[in-house]
Amino acid sequence: MTNIVQQKIEQAIALLKADTSANAIDCWLTFARETSQVHDPAIDLILGFGVTWDSAFLITRTGEAIAIVGRFDGDNVRKLNAYTQVLTYDQGIGDVLRETMVRLAPQRLGLNFSLSTSSADGLTHGMFLRLQRMLGDVVPADGWLSAEEIVRRLREHKASSELDLIKEVTRRTEQVYAEMFKLPVRGMSEKEIHHVVGEIVAKYDCEFAGERINNPIVNAGPDSSIGHGIPSDLQVQPGQILHYDMWLQRDGYCSDLQRVGYVLREGETDAPDLVKRAWNACWIALEAGKATLRPSVAAWDVDQVAREALMECGYPEYMHAFGHHVGKRVHDGGSVLGPRWDRYGDMPYKPIEIGSVFTLELGVIVEGYGYIGIEEMVVVTAAGNAYLSTPQKDLILL
Amino acid sequence: MTNIVQQKIEQAIALLKADTSANAIDCWLTFARETSQVHDPAIDLILGFGVTWDSAFLITRTGEAIAIVGRFDGDNVRKLNAYTQVLTYDQGIGDVLRETMVRLAPQRLGLNFSLSTSSADGLTHGMFLRLQRMLGDVVPADGWLSAEEIVRRLREHKASSELDLIKEVTRRTEQVYAEMFKLPVRGMSEKEIHHVVGEIVAKYDCEFAGERINNPIVNAGPDSSIGHGIPSDLQVQPGQILHYDMWLQRDGYCSDLQRVGYVLREGETDAPDLVKRAWNACWIALEAGKATLRPSVAAWDVDQVAREALMECGYPEYMHAFGHHVGKRVHDGGSVLGPRWDRYGDMPYKPIEIGSVFTLELGVIVEGYGYIGIEEMVVVTAAGNAYLSTPQKDLILL
Repeated sequence: MTNIVQQKIEQAIALLKADTSANAIDCWLTFARETSQVHDPAIDLILGFGVTWDSAFLITRTGEAIAIVGRFDGDNVRKLNAYTQVLTYDQGIGDVLRETMVRLAPQRLGLNFSLSTSSADGLTHGMFLRLQRMLGDVVPADGWLSAEEIVRRLREHKASSELDLIKEVTRRTEQVYAEMFKLPVRGMSEKEIHHVVGEIVAKYDCEFAGERINNPIVNAGPDSSIGHGIPSDLQVQPGQILHYDMWLQRDGYCSDLQRVGYVLREGETDAPDLVKRAWNACWIALEAGKATLRPSVAAWDVDQVAREALMECGYPEYMHAFGHHVGKRVHDGGSVLGPRWDRYGDMPYKPIEIGSVFTLELGVIVEGYGYIGIEEMVVVTAAGNAYLSTPQKDLILL
Repeated sequence: MTNIVQQKIEQAIALLKADTSANAIDCWLTFARETSQVHDPAIDLILGFGVTWDSAFLITRTGEAIAIVGRFDGDNVRKLNAYTQVLTYDQGIGDVLRETMVRLAPQRLGLNFSLSTSSADGLTHGMFLRLQRMLGDVVPADGWLSAEEIVRRLREHKASSELDLIKEVTRRTEQVYAEMFKLPVRGMSEKEIHHVVGEIVAKYDCEFAGERINNPIVNAGPDSSIGHGIPSDLQVQPGQILHYDMWLQRDGYCSDLQRVGYVLREGETDAPDLVKRAWNACWIALEAGKATLRPSVAAWDVDQVAREALMECGYPEYMHAFGHHVGKRVHDGGSVLGPRWDRYGDMPYKPIEIGSVFTLELGVIVEGYGYIGIEEMVVVTAAGNAYLSTPQKDLILL
């Protein structure tokens, strides 16, 4: 049985071999240290755990995969059975890295830096300067290239074993949400709800993906801070929309889903029309965007279809992207189903890859009631896409 | 009441003002995006939570503190009351960042890159290239400088409110350990112990700091993988040393402690002499190093005293540093109580700051029994240092 790191390294070698352009990279180098401080996202793919000392991971067009790590990380790397060579050192990486690079003599070295794609931009500037000091005479001056296309495609095209893990954490996230909607929320503050979710998440053997401070986002009613708000002392009251956004991880893979309830007032049996109309508009827009998503389409076009559908329903456009990749990280991959805004760089222009997992998300503020935000997860197939999550088609009445 | 971010920004302004050298930085710029992917550790100090979009944090010698963030992060930043100005944007940070920098016109811009100090090296190479594109004509060519000394000192000199939080998470870590040593470990595998610790940590309202996969490290007996080993299927047996290394966090601050037990064999009432002798040697060495640690001494000298004391007891030197900072991160700060090895760069040469929190750690392999690793936490005072943890002076008999 091959593990995910083995699959990803094989995939990386295949991507290097398949590139027959003049600028094709000979050797892809990930150079990292103290990943508990600054973590290159590429490490997730080609290692799956962190390192403390200077570490170099070299993958070549000729099929070599060489890890150079501190002595104490050696055993963990060898156990992966993913590298053709695992070299260790005690005092400094310089000599062994240099010897290896002199032997490989790459003319075009791919490094993890990118102007537009943060997941392909894990090499720090200090580490780049160190590489240039160590290898300035080994690699030609014009041979220091961005490996962003390899990193992007490696992240975006999920192996079947990766999809299984994403499905599992998504299923568990839905179970956590089911318990959250059983909480006696009337009178509870956003902070209190945020706190008790910790125990529910532990019960389902998941972890919060990334920072806990605003995970889950809890928006109780119209005065809550929309966006990436930190839970406040606002209390849930009848007549309010209760909105959650939560991203969990398990076995190294993430989920990202939003869920929405309406807190009934005395005597109410359904949400007010204003709330229901906004809910329906959100779903019309999400389904319109979803129907567009397939490998041949432009990423920005998927966003535009959803955006326009929402506006046609009479609501303002959402001020974010319609979708982002999910995988090892909550914001994964290098493309985005987003508008052609400056801040998204060239991410909305990248091709959509089969086997990618996207969230689809958008929302509407309902004056006087609160925020409706919906978010589901889909996998891209040859023909289009399919839900990975169980879509919340109905507003939950509380 | 001032919050920690306010205190840290005031401290940063004071550090900028206090530097009267010719190369003194006018303006310290932290430039980050998608911190869930690549997280600049400086963000912990000057913000305390993550950002999604391009974000710039400018702190000047003249006392300005300006945050430029995406619209959705604006509220969270304003609520800190730590910035003199909070600017937001929708489509791209370029215009507002440029306008601000033209107004400030820094001649010496400090950025988060460092060859030797990973906690001061959070700026990615891609983000550095973007800054040069955006501001290449605003900042002089020789004005792109490392801010590592500011970042290092800001991290290392803990405010009293930071010390309180570190003490609290350390106390809770000791409570978690107390429960771990009550587990019926005989016959449990390293993996099983690793798994159940999850519930104990949640019960004490702490989180694992960083990756869960090898946290805690569980070493059962002589065949276990020493170092940063991932827990295996090896089962705890009588006659073995059981060694734990665990790093937790709570309210944004971390602990890092190792604890050791001996699993008694049928009829045994104490650990074998070979084990006890190694235990005592570890403590002689740790106390010797601890007695040396004070602001006036060289960091590498503290390591050397401990290292030589262990060797004088007849054991081989440990192949790591004697101590590292702990704070927002488990490996914090920019100096290390370590040997003058290449891989530590200039970190062993940095001055020791009052108010720093260090772990003190070292270990010995006991042939046939397993690994003894001890690790405690201390705070540096004017006169020397004091334990923050309750030192484990006696081997726990199981």
